[in-house]
Amino acid sequence: MMLTLSCVRFCSGLTTFRTAAHVRPLHSVSGITVAQIDEEVAKLLELKAQLGGDDGKNQFVLKTPKGTRDYNPKQMAIREKVFNTIIGCFKRHGAETIDTPVFELKETLTGKYGEDSKLIYDLKDQGGELLSLRYDLTVPFARYLAMNKITNIKRYHIAKVYRRDNPAMTRGRYREFYQCDFDIAGQYDAMIPDAECLKIVHEILSALELGDFRIKVNDRRILDGMFAVCGVPDDKFRTICSTVDKLDKMSWEDVKKEMVVEKGLSEEAADQIGQYVSMQGGMDLAERLLQDPKMSQSKQACAGLSDIKLLFSYLQLFQVVFDLSLARGLDYYTGVIYEAVLTQAGVAPVANDTQNGAEENVSVGSVAGGGRYDGLVGMFDPKGRKVPCVGVSIGIERIFSIMEQKAEALAEKVRTTEVQVMVASAQKNLLEERLRLVTELWNAGVKAEVMYKKNPKLLSQLQHCEEAGIPLVAILGEQELKDGVVKLRVVATREEVDVSRADVISEIKRRTSEA
Amino acid sequence: MMLTLSCVRFCSGLTTFRTAAHVRPLHSVSGITVAQIDEEVAKLLELKAQLGGDDGKNQFVLKTPKGTRDYNPKQMAIREKVFNTIIGCFKRHGAETIDTPVFELKETLTGKYGEDSKLIYDLKDQGGELLSLRYDLTVPFARYLAMNKITNIKRYHIAKVYRRDNPAMTRGRYREFYQCDFDIAGQYDAMIPDAECLKIVHEILSALELGDFRIKVNDRRILDGMFAVCGVPDDKFRTICSTVDKLDKMSWEDVKKEMVVEKGLSEEAADQIGQYVSMQGGMDLAERLLQDPKMSQSKQACAGLSDIKLLFSYLQLFQVVFDLSLARGLDYYTGVIYEAVLTQAGVAPVANDTQNGAEENVSVGSVAGGGRYDGLVGMFDPKGRKVPCVGVSIGIERIFSIMEQKAEALAEKVRTTEVQVMVASAQKNLLEERLRLVTELWNAGVKAEVMYKKNPKLLSQLQHCEEAGIPLVAILGEQELKDGVVKLRVVATREEVDVSRADVISEIKRRTSEA
Repeated sequence: MMLTLSCVRFCSGLTTFRTAAHVRPLHSVSGITVAQIDEEVAKLLELKAQLGGDDGKNQFVLKTPKGTRDYNPKQMAIREKVFNTIIGCFKRHGAETIDTPVFELKETLTGKYGEDSKLIYDLKDQGGELLSLRYDLTVPFARYLAMNKITNIKRYHIAKVYRRDNPAMTRGRYREFYQCDFDIAGQYDAMIPDAECLKIVHEILSALELGDFRIKVNDRRILDGMFAVCGVPDDKFRTICSTVDKLDKMSWEDVKKEMVVEKGLSEEAADQIGQYVSMQGGMDLAERLLQDPKMSQSKQACAGLSDIKLLFSYLQLFQVVFDLSLARGLDYYTGVIYEAVLTQAGVAPVANDTQNGAEENVSVGSVAGGGRYDGLVGMFDPKGRKVPCVGVSIGIERIFSIMEQKAEALAEKVRTTEVQVMVASAQKNLLEERLRLVTELWNAGVKAEVMYKKNPKLLSQLQHCEEAGIPLVAILGEQELKDGVVKLRVVATREEVDVSRADVISEIKRRTSEA
Repeated sequence: MMLTLSCVRFCSGLTTFRTAAHVRPLHSVSGITVAQIDEEVAKLLELKAQLGGDDGKNQFVLKTPKGTRDYNPKQMAIREKVFNTIIGCFKRHGAETIDTPVFELKETLTGKYGEDSKLIYDLKDQGGELLSLRYDLTVPFARYLAMNKITNIKRYHIAKVYRRDNPAMTRGRYREFYQCDFDIAGQYDAMIPDAECLKIVHEILSALELGDFRIKVNDRRILDGMFAVCGVPDDKFRTICSTVDKLDKMSWEDVKKEMVVEKGLSEEAADQIGQYVSMQGGMDLAERLLQDPKMSQSKQACAGLSDIKLLFSYLQLFQVVFDLSLARGLDYYTGVIYEAVLTQAGVAPVANDTQNGAEENVSVGSVAGGGRYDGLVGMFDPKGRKVPCVGVSIGIERIFSIMEQKAEALAEKVRTTEVQVMVASAQKNLLEERLRLVTELWNAGVKAEVMYKKNPKLLSQLQHCEEAGIPLVAILGEQELKDGVVKLRVVATREEVDVSRADVISEIKRRTSEA
């Protein structure tokens, strides 16, 4: 296990998975003129839409809205497979699930996303409440907990969220996209739920066979403490942090130059930071930093490091054997923070589905992230009562893209149905016989299909099986009817065998349950 | 099998399941003043939201938007069970699935819903395209087919749709609600896919054990033909139809009176309609009407009746043995139409989740509806090329309500997790042992849980099992550790047995796979 301080990402703002939660006024309009222009534009566009409607049916633009896509059956099959793996893991860990509306009261979202509030989709005021589409699942979750006075729950929530961002769809960045969150809320003993979140990330990424990955771990308190003992003034934490975060793409020399020249940090402080962020290690590094004469001066850092030690010990019990190195941090988080990145060369170029403007701040290959956020639920409680939470968000859109690319690269046949047997006929006038047999199969719980033609050609029925990946064909013909049998054909081998009509259902059930 | 003409519902406008698709201009604004008022209101509300945001965290209104709800874990467990049954049926019939964005270009929806266009949620114009939330899944499906030039597909789509209607949430009517659609698009031989849709309705309603139900079948052409031969003027079809539709709640005398006195139909025509709508029957009635001197004058009616006969013959092969009586019709449909209603007394009051204003036109107890709509896809095609479609929509929200009420009435314990075993400790200082054992269980694919406390009390661990319905507890204690065993406790019987630590995983797997 490795803990690296090389890649400090504290103030990187907003991310793929979770978003900053500092209370701030809404981005105010610069003048009444802008608003008026907007309204005029709206009026004209509305008028345009009305005219379009009157023009009749040939005026339709056949497209989905910018930044969105349909999922075709093949994409849905991949999506279902990924969801089944992930939900299977969540259920194995005893999670419940909830759902919330796709829109929230505008004021529920107000002040939760800082500058990114401008990316929120608002609904038109049609009289009544002002509504906005949800921007993530975490704020609705906090609202749900506060509203229902729930103080402990282990829940997952998989649903679409909406961001009026600049889409980059070829790189998996959409305006409508799935989030896939697992969170544990409640007052528990330190680091036990936190460790389970990491165990879950490990299980899911392993099960999905996405290749090698690395999970980076850090703690907001370690970062805050490190900046303090290195002599970074409080008001420069954020800006220095966002510079250090560039170590992914810039050399240390350039990072240092930016801190000193552009941001006015003392060279001494910069050098001290440089020492820490180059460190890598595991439990041993946490130990070493606890003994470090400077770091040990920060109570905060020590608390964070002790918790990281505890986390490591639990992860050992969980048989989680990945390298740990330093994850980015977020304003949002109050304790442990983590991020999982894919490290396999072939996978990285799949791109960056950060879903927000701060793309350059998020690792290429990032597929999961999370941490502890003990303050968010309290923002919704009239008395500010806190509900400690820790959670993880799986970067499901990225994973879809990878799986889709993989299927394509391997020229893998993705089945879009689960049909086990096709009921076919070899001659004309056998529709009734086909319908009878397919009914028996359906009633026996077998996934079966029949062509919606009175007299389909045998060849076209067999071709359909090849195309749709249906493994078995039950062929009815005049001779078979006379002999009281059905011909079973294995599509892959073209092997055929006659089975008595009375036994055909059980024979098909036997063969399909084997598969 | 019974075909009833007693309950003609042709012009009832919009319904729970499908919606009218006549091209019409948008409901135009009555004057610029209204628009200005709207804008002023919008501005003020916007300002209000901004002020609310600035006032800080204690100003939040903790609620979901009007007409929407959260699903709690218990509701989600019921929802999952219902979905699994329905999706299982769709898959058994070889359906693929697709997904479309939650919003569409406004103009995609324009002109598809007649007067109900006013119920569409528009997004605020924030620059860029004008968008609306989807109102149903059928128009997006037609858009998808036309856009991708797909001429045949068998697909299901389960997703939320949005209607700015007057909510009646206690009766299961929401502004955000699920639709659950199965459709077969393509040029096929008559009535084969239509019959499969009905087979599916029958399978799903039977599997969900909702009690007795009745499926009513009709054909738009029979209705049109009947009105014509009874002497209803073309321009009165709709209004007469909406009156006849009231036979559910009004006596024939009152219905006749409305037709003659209010709507100016001749008494003779009214009496003739009265004869037809009182008829009930099955294949025999279709035969009889084909021979009927009046009805047989309408080519349309004869075509519809012949198809109904064919449908009945296929349904017999499908072993579908319900009563058939006359379903309501919709503008939208071009051929066969059907509706399934629950007939069991206890279930009817569950109410009417029609999701639109025409509530009074929809049967209490309606849980599925559909029919053939051969014209819709063509509305999206620049050259108007048609793709024949037939489909069914399961009234899933109604079904959720019934299942929730049933669970409550039976004081049924609804499990919200699937945890099979709880790893507990009898004494202090056994956290590490618990984490080790639960890890082995997770890695073996067993759904297992552990309390996030260092030293939880045995009683509270056992209580959690009772509350959460966890059937098995693996108890670690000092004595057990010494003896090299784990105590397995069956929660229901309180039976306990010691199993050697080496065998405990396989013993738990054996017991949980039996369950």
